[in-house]
Amino acid sequence: MKEHRIGIIMNGVTGRMGAHQHLARSIAAIRADGGVVVADGEVIVPDPILVGRNEAKLQKLSQEHGGLPWSLDLSACLSDPSYSVYFDAQTTDRRLEAVAAALAAGKHVYCEKPTATNIADALKLHQLAERAGVKHGVVQDKLWLPGFLKLRQLIDSGFFGEILSVRGEFGYWVFTGEHQPAQRPSWNYRKEEGGGIILDLLCHWRYLIDNLFGEVTAVSCLGATHVKKRWDEAGRPYTPTAEDAAYATLTTERGIVCHFNSSWNVRVRRDDLLTLQVDGMRGSAVAGLRRCWVQPDATTPRPVWNPDIDSPINYFDGWTEVPTTRDYGNAFRAQWELFLRHVALDEPFRWNLLEGAKGVQLAELAHRSWQTRAWVDVPKL
Amino acid sequence: MKEHRIGIIMNGVTGRMGAHQHLARSIAAIRADGGVVVADGEVIVPDPILVGRNEAKLQKLSQEHGGLPWSLDLSACLSDPSYSVYFDAQTTDRRLEAVAAALAAGKHVYCEKPTATNIADALKLHQLAERAGVKHGVVQDKLWLPGFLKLRQLIDSGFFGEILSVRGEFGYWVFTGEHQPAQRPSWNYRKEEGGGIILDLLCHWRYLIDNLFGEVTAVSCLGATHVKKRWDEAGRPYTPTAEDAAYATLTTERGIVCHFNSSWNVRVRRDDLLTLQVDGMRGSAVAGLRRCWVQPDATTPRPVWNPDIDSPINYFDGWTEVPTTRDYGNAFRAQWELFLRHVALDEPFRWNLLEGAKGVQLAELAHRSWQTRAWVDVPKL
Amino acid sequence: MKEHRIGIIMNGVTGRMGAHQHLARSIAAIRADGGVVVADGEVIVPDPILVGRNEAKLQKLSQEHGGLPWSLDLSACLSDPSYSVYFDAQTTDRRLEAVAAALAAGKHVYCEKPTATNIADALKLHQLAERAGVKHGVVQDKLWLPGFLKLRQLIDSGFFGEILSVRGEFGYWVFTGEHQPAQRPSWNYRKEEGGGIILDLLCHWRYLIDNLFGEVTAVSCLGATHVKKRWDEAGRPYTPTAEDAAYATLTTERGIVCHFNSSWNVRVRRDDLLTLQVDGMRGSAVAGLRRCWVQPDATTPRPVWNPDIDSPINYFDGWTEVPTTRDYGNAFRAQWELFLRHVALDEPFRWNLLEGAKGVQLAELAHRSWQTRAWVDVPKL
Amino acid sequence: MKEHRIGIIMNGVTGRMGAHQHLARSIAAIRADGGVVVADGEVIVPDPILVGRNEAKLQKLSQEHGGLPWSLDLSACLSDPSYSVYFDAQTTDRRLEAVAAALAAGKHVYCEKPTATNIADALKLHQLAERAGVKHGVVQDKLWLPGFLKLRQLIDSGFFGEILSVRGEFGYWVFTGEHQPAQRPSWNYRKEEGGGIILDLLCHWRYLIDNLFGEVTAVSCLGATHVKKRWDEAGRPYTPTAEDAAYATLTTERGIVCHFNSSWNVRVRRDDLLTLQVDGMRGSAVAGLRRCWVQPDATTPRPVWNPDIDSPINYFDGWTEVPTTRDYGNAFRAQWELFLRHVALDEPFRWNLLEGAKGVQLAELAHRSWQTRAWVDVPKL
Repeated sequence: MKEHRIGIIMNGVTGRMGAHQHLARSIAAIRADGGVVVADGEVIVPDPILVGRNEAKLQKLSQEHGGLPWSLDLSACLSDPSYSVYFDAQTTDRRLEAVAAALAAGKHVYCEKPTATNIADALKLHQLAERAGVKHGVVQDKLWLPGFLKLRQLIDSGFFGEILSVRGEFGYWVFTGEHQPAQRPSWNYRKEEGGGIILDLLCHWRYLIDNLFGEVTAVSCLGATHVKKRWDEAGRPYTPTAEDAAYATLTTERGIVCHFNSSWNVRVRRDDLLTLQVDGMRGSAVAGLRRCWVQPDATTPRPVWNPDIDSPINYFDGWTEVPTTRDYGNAFRAQWELFLRHVALDEPFRWNLLEGAKGVQLAELAHRSWQTRAWVDVPKL
Repeated sequence: MKEHRIGIIMNGVTGRMGAHQHLARSIAAIRADGGVVVADGEVIVPDPILVGRNEAKLQKLSQEHGGLPWSLDLSACLSDPSYSVYFDAQTTDRRLEAVAAALAAGKHVYCEKPTATNIADALKLHQLAERAGVKHGVVQDKLWLPGFLKLRQLIDSGFFGEILSVRGEFGYWVFTGEHQPAQRPSWNYRKEEGGGIILDLLCHWRYLIDNLFGEVTAVSCLGATHVKKRWDEAGRPYTPTAEDAAYATLTTERGIVCHFNSSWNVRVRRDDLLTLQVDGMRGSAVAGLRRCWVQPDATTPRPVWNPDIDSPINYFDGWTEVPTTRDYGNAFRAQWELFLRHVALDEPFRWNLLEGAKGVQLAELAHRSWQTRAWVDVPKL
Repeated sequence: MKEHRIGIIMNGVTGRMGAHQHLARSIAAIRADGGVVVADGEVIVPDPILVGRNEAKLQKLSQEHGGLPWSLDLSACLSDPSYSVYFDAQTTDRRLEAVAAALAAGKHVYCEKPTATNIADALKLHQLAERAGVKHGVVQDKLWLPGFLKLRQLIDSGFFGEILSVRGEFGYWVFTGEHQPAQRPSWNYRKEEGGGIILDLLCHWRYLIDNLFGEVTAVSCLGATHVKKRWDEAGRPYTPTAEDAAYATLTTERGIVCHFNSSWNVRVRRDDLLTLQVDGMRGSAVAGLRRCWVQPDATTPRPVWNPDIDSPINYFDGWTEVPTTRDYGNAFRAQWELFLRHVALDEPFRWNLLEGAKGVQLAELAHRSWQTRAWVDVPKL
Repeated sequence: MKEHRIGIIMNGVTGRMGAHQHLARSIAAIRADGGVVVADGEVIVPDPILVGRNEAKLQKLSQEHGGLPWSLDLSACLSDPSYSVYFDAQTTDRRLEAVAAALAAGKHVYCEKPTATNIADALKLHQLAERAGVKHGVVQDKLWLPGFLKLRQLIDSGFFGEILSVRGEFGYWVFTGEHQPAQRPSWNYRKEEGGGIILDLLCHWRYLIDNLFGEVTAVSCLGATHVKKRWDEAGRPYTPTAEDAAYATLTTERGIVCHFNSSWNVRVRRDDLLTLQVDGMRGSAVAGLRRCWVQPDATTPRPVWNPDIDSPINYFDGWTEVPTTRDYGNAFRAQWELFLRHVALDEPFRWNLLEGAKGVQLAELAHRSWQTRAWVDVPKL
C-alpha cells in the first residue's frame, strides 16, 4: 500500500461552511474512508491541523473529529514543514494577508471564494502564487453539484444543439428577523462588513457560465436593497446598507445571453433554490441543485395563445427528468479530491487563483455597471 | 327600453385579430346579447360597418355575422354622420394616416396597439385627438385577462404589503418552420417588415406595469436574434433580421424593479405562456393569463441550503390558487364595453391615445438602450 | 374560382374498405368540403361513378352519398371520356384484368394493395402503365397515419442520430368464431382464396421500411398456422390453410435491422395494435397508429440487473409523448389528395405501381424464405 | 438433529457473480440459516473453502464471511477428502481443465454456464462426469426467478390451453462510455476476449425454452454489431468486434414458435428488462423477472382497427397481475438447495452437464445460422 500523506493547515474552519463542508464532509470524510484511492493499493491521506482564533471552538471541533491537532498560532504552523498545504476559509477581508503569508512560506494554497474584495488583490494573490511556484486552487463547488454535472453531460453529448440563452434564478425568502429569526447573518446585509449579494453570488455565476457556456464578455447589472429594515441576531432592528437583490444580464464569447436574477426577497415557485434554464436549438433543460429536466425538440408542444380558455397544455408535462445514474457525493469533497490529486500526483487542476480572480472581477464590474448605469465589458485576465 | 346606438367604422377587421377578437368576440357578441346593459332598461348597441381593401373577405365576414354593412371606401364612411366611432386594426404602418383622417372628420377613435411606429407620430395622434375634442382609446387587452384582474385585486386588497419586485416571463418555442410550420408569420422575424419582439411586446409591458406597479421611469434592454435561420410560409429558408428575444429591466416611480424576459425561443416550464411573479413584504403571487397563485408570509417556507440531499420541500406546494369567483369574459370585449360606456355615458376611460403613446415610447427607448448599451430614462409624456 | 374536375371510376367500393375509407372518408369528404384547395381560388373536385357487380349494394351506396352515378358495366365506363381516372379496390385476384383494361383505355390508375398476387403480374401492370404514359398510384395509407408521420418528423429532425434497429409488432386476437364471431372474414385464413398474413401485411411493411429506414435488401421469414380450427361466418368449423402469423427479420440498405412479428393470435399488451420501436444512438421512439413516445439519450435510465428486488425503475416513466401539433386528417384521404394533385397539377407522386410491385415482391420472397428456410436477398426492381 | 455436512471447493468466487450470488446470497446465507432443512430435525450444511488466484481478494472474502478457509492450491483441495463437491465460477475459458481435474478426483461437480466455449468440450465434460459416476449440475438460475416460476405454474395449471407462440425481449441501453461509464465490461464487446451476446444469452434462452415450452428443434439467428464505437473502463475508445444484438427465431418439439430479440442497444418501454409473452388458445401471459400479468380468453378485448380516432381501448387495462403468494427467495440459492439435496439425499436433479451442454450447443448453432444465413436444425444430444 502506497500512501501519500498531505499535511493541511485549515484556517477558519470554525465557521459554519468551513466546519461542515470542508472539514466534516470533505477532509474528515476522506480520512474515514482511508484516503482518496488513486490506484490499486495507492491512496492520498490528508492530515489536517485546525487553526483559528477561538480556542474553545477549536477544541470542540478537534474533539468532534477524534482529536485532530489544532493551534492558535498561524505563523508557527506556516513554518512547520510537515504541512505542505494552506487552506483558507476565513472571512474575505482576512484572506489576502493570510494567503500571502502562506505563499511566502512556500505552501500550496487552496481557499474559499471570493479570494479578495477587489480584483487588484485577487490578481496579486495569483501572481504571488505563480512566483512561489506552488500549486493553488479556489473553491468552485457548484460545478460539482449533481444538477450542473447533469447539465454538463447534456452539453457534452450535444443534447442542446446550438445553445441560445440561459436563465438563472437564485433566491428565496430570507426572513427579516422581526417575527422569526433570519436564516442568514446580519453582516450579509451590511456593506461596511463585506455584505451584498453581488460579491457573494456573481463569483459563482462567473465560474458556472465560464465553464458551461463560454467566458463572460460583458455584464449589465442592477442592484437593489428591497427590504429597508431588518432585525439582527440579537433582535435589534437595523437598516440594511448592502444590496439584497441583483438583476444581471451577461453575454459570453459564444454569443449566448445569460440572465441571472439573484434575490433574498423572493418566494420560490420553481424547481429549486437555484435553477438554470438552458434553451438550445434541439432541446432545453432546467437544472436545479441535484435534479435536471429536459424537453427535446421532439416533445416540444405547440402552444396556441388563447386566453379565453384555460390552457389545454400543462407546461410541466412535456419534460422528463434526467436520471441519476451514479453517486455524485458531496460537491466540496469532489473538488478537494481533485486538488489533493493535483498536489500529490501533479494531475491538472484548472480552478486556480486566476479562475478565482475572474469571479472577483465580475463582481467588481457588476458593481461598476450598476453605478454607471451601462454595460461594462469584461476583459480577459 | 332606452337604447344608445353607436355606429362604428371597423377598419382592418379582416385580419385574424380584428375578425376574431374585435368583431366576433366583442362587437358581434355584444349585439347578440342585446347590447351592453348599463342600467335597468338601458342598453348601448354598437352598429358596425366593416371597412377594408379585400372585397371577397369583407363579403365573407359580413355574411358570417348576419349581413353586416361593409365598404371599400373609408372616406365615404368617415363623412357618414351615422357613424360616430372609428376603430382601427390595420397594420401599424397604415394607422397614422387613417386615424388622423378620422379625427379630422370628428370621429371618436379606438385603435389597436402600437398606435404608431414611433413616439413622435404616436404623440401627434394624441394631440390631434385632444384638439378635435373627441373621445379616444387604445386596446390594452391584457389588463382584463383573469390572471391580471386577480393580481389587481390582490394589490388593491393590500395582500402584498410593500411590493418589491416583479419578474415577467413571456414566451414559448416558435418552430423554425423546417420540420413543422412556424406558429407565427415570417414577417415577425423581419425588421424591414415591422417585425421584432420589442415593438410587439414592450407596449404591453408598459401598460401592465404602469397600471399595476406605477409608471415606468427607466429601462435597460438587450435584444438578440437567437435563431439564425427560419423557413417561411412557403417553406423557403430566410435569415431573420429582427430580434426574437428581449431582456429588459425596468424601474417604476414606486421603486419597484421589474425584469421581463421575452422570447420566442424558450421551452415553457412554468405556469403559463406569460407569467408575472410579484414579491412583496407580506406575500407573493404568480399570475398567468387566467390563473393566479399566492404565498402569504404565513406559509412561506424556510428553506435550508443543503445540496447533499434532495430538497425536502416541494417549492410548488406552499402556494394556493386564487379562486375564480366570477365570469371574466373576453378581455377585448371587456375593454370595448368600457369604451362604449365612455362614449355613450361619458364615464371615465383612462386607456387613451396618450397611454397608447407610452407603449410606443417604451419600445423606442428600449431600442435606444440596446443600441447605446446603457440605461435610458423614460420621461413623462 | 378555378375548378379542376376529375371523373373517377371507383370499382369495388361496395366492400368495407372501399366504401368506408375510399368513398366516404376520402372522395365524398373532399366533395363535401368543396374540393381540394390547391391555391387561392383554385380547387380540384373529384366526380366519382360507382362500379360493381351487386346492383342493390351500388344503389344503397349511391343513395348514402346523395345519389352518385353508378354502373354495372365497367367497359362502358372505361370508354366514357368524362372519367380520366380508374380506381380499383376489388379483391386482389380480380385486379390484374381490370387495371390492365383501364390502362388500355388510357385511364390514369390508382389502386389498392397488393397490386397483384405475384411479382410478375405486379411488374407487368407497372410496364403497361408506363407504356400507356398515364399517371398511376398505389394505396400506401399507413405512411399518412399520425404516428408514422411523427416518426418521419423525428427522423428528419435528426432525433435518433444513427438508427440501429426497428422492432415492429402487429396483431391482436382474432376470435376463432366458436364462442363469438371472428372479427375478420374466413377467406383470410384460406390460402386457396388469397388468404394469409404474409401477402396481406408484408406489402405494408415494405413501404413503411423503404420510406422510413431505407430500401429492404434481404428477408428471413417464418410463417405459421397457429390456430388449427376456426368457425366461418355461418358458424361452420373449418381448417385454416393459410398462415396466421409471420416472423420476419429484414435488413435495409442503411444497415438497419428490422424485425416484424405479425399475428392474429396475440393478446395485446403494448401501446397499440401496430407499434414500431426505433432505437438510435441519440434516442429511441415507439410509434403507434396515432401516438408516439420518445426517450432521448439524456433521459435514458441506467438499469441494474437485480432480480432479487422489484425493479426500482418503471420503464414506462422515462418516455415523453410527441405532441400532436396539427390536424392529421384521414390517412387514405391524405394520399388521395396527393394523387389528385398529381393528376391535375402534375405534382410529383412517388407511390406508384412500381412501389406497389415492391410490396408484392417482398411478400413473394418472404414466402420463398419460409419454404427454403433461408435468407433471401431482395433485388432492386 | 441429523446433519449432512457437505464440503465444497468454491473456485472463482472472487468475481462479482461468484462472490455475490453463489457465496453471499447462496452458500453463506444457507449457513447463516443453519443449513437446508430437509425434514424435521434434519439439515444439510455446506462447508465451503474458497479457491482462487488472488490472495488479497481471497483473504478479504474470507473475512467478510467470518473467516472461511481459503486456498491458492486447487490440486491440494481436490485431493482433500473432506470436500466432496467442486464448484466452478471461473471465466469460461478456464472451466474445462478445472472441472475435468475435479471429475478425475471423484468430486461431484456444480458449475456456471456456459460450461465450455464449444459443444465438443461441453459434451466431453458430461461424458467424464458420467464415467466418474458422480453427481453434476449447471447453473440455470433464471428458472427460479419469481416471474418464470409464475409462468411455470400457469403452464402446469392449464391456463394457456394449447400454447401457440412465445415472444422474448431482452435488453436495455448499455451506454457507450463516452459521456458516462458503460454498465458492462468492455470485454463483452470484444470477440477475441469471449464477448458477444449470442454466447452469453442463448444458453439462457435454451434452458428457459426447453423447460417451459419443449426442446428446441431449430434456430434462425441474425447477429449484429449495432454500436460501432465504445469507450472502455479507462475512457479509451475502441471498436467493438463482437455482436451486441441477436434476433433469433426458434421452434420447439411441441410446434411452438419462439422469437427472442436480445440487445444491449434498446431503450426499454416494456414491463421489465427481460419479458416473455406467451400466447395460448385460452389465454396469454407476459412475465418479467419477478412479476407476471395474464389475460384469459374471457377478458380478451375485441379491438376494431380505426386509426381515425385514438384507440378507445387502453391495451394495458385488460391484464391482471398474478399475485405473489409465497416468498421466492434468491434464484441461485434455490437451485443450490436442490443440488445439495441431490448430493445428500439422492433426490432427482435434471439440470446437469448434459443440459448445460445444450445451452452451448444452441449458441454454437445460432452462430452457424448467422454465418450460413439459414435455419439450422438442433439435433438431440
